[in-house]
Amino acid sequence: MVHNFNAGPSILPKEVFEEAAAAVLNFNNTGLSILEYGHRTAAFEAIMQEARQLMRELMALDEQHEVLFLHGGASTQFMQVPMNLLDLKDTAAYTDTGVWAAKAIKEAKLFGKPEVVCSSKDKNYTFIPKDFAVPNDAKYLHITTNNTIYGTQWKKIPVTSNSLVADMSSDILSRSMNFNVFDLIYAGAQKNIGAAGVTIVVVNKNILGKLKRNIPTMMDYRNHIAEGSMLNTPPVFAVYTCMLTLRWLKKQGGVNAIEKINNQKAALLYNEIDRNTLFKGTVAVEDRSNMNVCFVMNDANKEKAFLDYATQHQIIGIKGHRSVGGFRASLYNAMPLSSVEYLVSIMQQFEQNNPS
Amino acid sequence: MVHNFNAGPSILPKEVFEEAAAAVLNFNNTGLSILEYGHRTAAFEAIMQEARQLMRELMALDEQHEVLFLHGGASTQFMQVPMNLLDLKDTAAYTDTGVWAAKAIKEAKLFGKPEVVCSSKDKNYTFIPKDFAVPNDAKYLHITTNNTIYGTQWKKIPVTSNSLVADMSSDILSRSMNFNVFDLIYAGAQKNIGAAGVTIVVVNKNILGKLKRNIPTMMDYRNHIAEGSMLNTPPVFAVYTCMLTLRWLKKQGGVNAIEKINNQKAALLYNEIDRNTLFKGTVAVEDRSNMNVCFVMNDANKEKAFLDYATQHQIIGIKGHRSVGGFRASLYNAMPLSSVEYLVSIMQQFEQNNPS
Ligand SMILES: Cc1ncc(COP(=O)(O)O)c(C=O)c1O
Ligand SMILES: Cc1ncc(COP(=O)(O)O)c(C=O)c1O
Ligand SMILES: [Mg+2]
Ligand SMILES: [Mg+2]
Ligand SMILES: [Mg+2]
Ligand SMILES: [Mg+2]
Repeated sequence: MVHNFNAGPSILPKEVFEEAAAAVLNFNNTGLSILEYGHRTAAFEAIMQEARQLMRELMALDEQHEVLFLHGGASTQFMQVPMNLLDLKDTAAYTDTGVWAAKAIKEAKLFGKPEVVCSSKDKNYTFIPKDFAVPNDAKYLHITTNNTIYGTQWKKIPVTSNSLVADMSSDILSRSMNFNVFDLIYAGAQKNIGAAGVTIVVVNKNILGKLKRNIPTMMDYRNHIAEGSMLNTPPVFAVYTCMLTLRWLKKQGGVNAIEKINNQKAALLYNEIDRNTLFKGTVAVEDRSNMNVCFVMNDANKEKAFLDYATQHQIIGIKGHRSVGGFRASLYNAMPLSSVEYLVSIMQQFEQNNPS
Repeated sequence: MVHNFNAGPSILPKEVFEEAAAAVLNFNNTGLSILEYGHRTAAFEAIMQEARQLMRELMALDEQHEVLFLHGGASTQFMQVPMNLLDLKDTAAYTDTGVWAAKAIKEAKLFGKPEVVCSSKDKNYTFIPKDFAVPNDAKYLHITTNNTIYGTQWKKIPVTSNSLVADMSSDILSRSMNFNVFDLIYAGAQKNIGAAGVTIVVVNKNILGKLKRNIPTMMDYRNHIAEGSMLNTPPVFAVYTCMLTLRWLKKQGGVNAIEKINNQKAALLYNEIDRNTLFKGTVAVEDRSNMNVCFVMNDANKEKAFLDYATQHQIIGIKGHRSVGGFRASLYNAMPLSSVEYLVSIMQQFEQNNPS
């Protein structure tokens, strides 16, 4: 059995793979593949509807919030958010906590005046800034709730009178919070929600439609709301895998239940990193991500050997991002506790074989 | 066996379904699903590379043309094309030959000055305009090579000194032509190329980078070229099904070979529509699409009965678009001749049972 610690696209529940594969051959006993199935059919509309409803339920969204399944990846949201929320003269507050946050800031400059209210860049993004002020007139405060590359996570969502916007690509549905305090949440599906090729947007509909700008049809959230995420041909199969994954999450007991397991998994691995004489974590302890666990070796020369050892033992996807080096083990919702226990055991074996 | 005449998402080759389903369970014997497979891996890069190379080969593209696999659907290209090719004061010539063409014109207004050089709208888009002039200063001439909803097709690509841009969503790779005369071609994959969730753009790289406009990162074709369609997480599985479908097309003998079969299929069905006393075609004979065959019944009151009869006989997807009514049978590359023969036999049976 392969243990897949990829940062994304990443592991999904086994039953999702099985049901998705079955639907590629014969969807709902129609004799048709889901890949040839029309999106404007009752059966697909039911899938879209169920996916949306499961998101609403799992996030306990109120009536003001709409759930969209869009094209383009989270990277498209970097531009689509300010395009929908900022006039050219408007200010928005951005927190600079990693590569993805920085990309969001870059795109916002084309549509308004992003103001960077805090940054951990000069410490290679190894912590989450705590003290910063948000200008009153900022149309929104943008945070990246989990920084996939550096392995930091906002443990406390900032309390602010401004509108809150969050890139939750790498920790959506992994921990309980009041999702209704956000006016806009976006996330590429390919970590906690499904396969690559679809992006989730949760938006408070009251914040839309306030700009002078002419928004292109495909970029205007209101059009996607009006058409139930079927403004054009949706990525049918990607939406289907989301629906299956969300069903699975509900069966696990939802966000509260998965959060407990996620806490267990992360604690297990961080404890081993701390205990093990060969390894150390790379970020401020209080900001450690439960999703992406970044670590290095005290002796960097041993890193190649450990990577090889892990690979020989069917552990894949733990090579760190090139801007951090070392290792990153991603522990998304679908990652079983047993795989984390296994990784820990491999770290222990390696320590025994390579005393420091 | 179900005969799927859907307009899109639509039938794909059976072996594509089988290989795609197998990869969802176990991709390339890795023990991993393709849905959990990282896009920045040698194996996926090879898929992207092969898909691109197959497009180049099947279209016989020259070195100036780049092939991209993008997010967003063809509808996003309605805005992305003028965003990349027009400054606000620039003119572009658009041909108004259907609903999709009209949508392209609408988006172009946000980025430049589209000029409608011909239209068949007042005849409900039942023909392709032949006589029209393109202003010399138009940055490009935009055509929709096949009008999916109305069932018309440009049999002769206009010869013009202007740059040529084409929406080929519904007939790409279905007939031979010199694809290099186009400076930009776009197509949603979900008809002739693969599953929904990825869009193909073929662009002459020399036409890019000439604008004053600041183009958002995800909208700038140059960025996607530079990153080999991996500027952000690509829709991995959708790209994979494209690659499989393109492999299949190559095995069939490529565009020339499939064109012959497509001609046969279309001739068979149009001949029956003409011969059969109950049915008639809806568009000018010389502009009849080989991809989407639109027809109605002389007695509109019989249409429901024929649709029911066809459905009982495992024929699906032939209901016409609401703006045309009647029937539309889509005969994309993967539709076997035998299914068209079968549809014809059902039309004949219905005629015998319901003499006019
Ligand atoms: C936090 C975060 N934001 C944005 C992105 C970009 O997502 P996409 O590749 O879907 O554009 C990623 C990708 O990993 C991410 O981790
Ligand atoms: C000719 C043509 N252009 C554009 C589109 C829109 O494609 P999408 O739904 O991928 O945005 C379609 C959809 O059927 C089409 O047939
Ligand atoms: Mg990051
Ligand atoms: Mg240690
Ligand atoms: Mg049309
Ligand atoms: Mg007739």
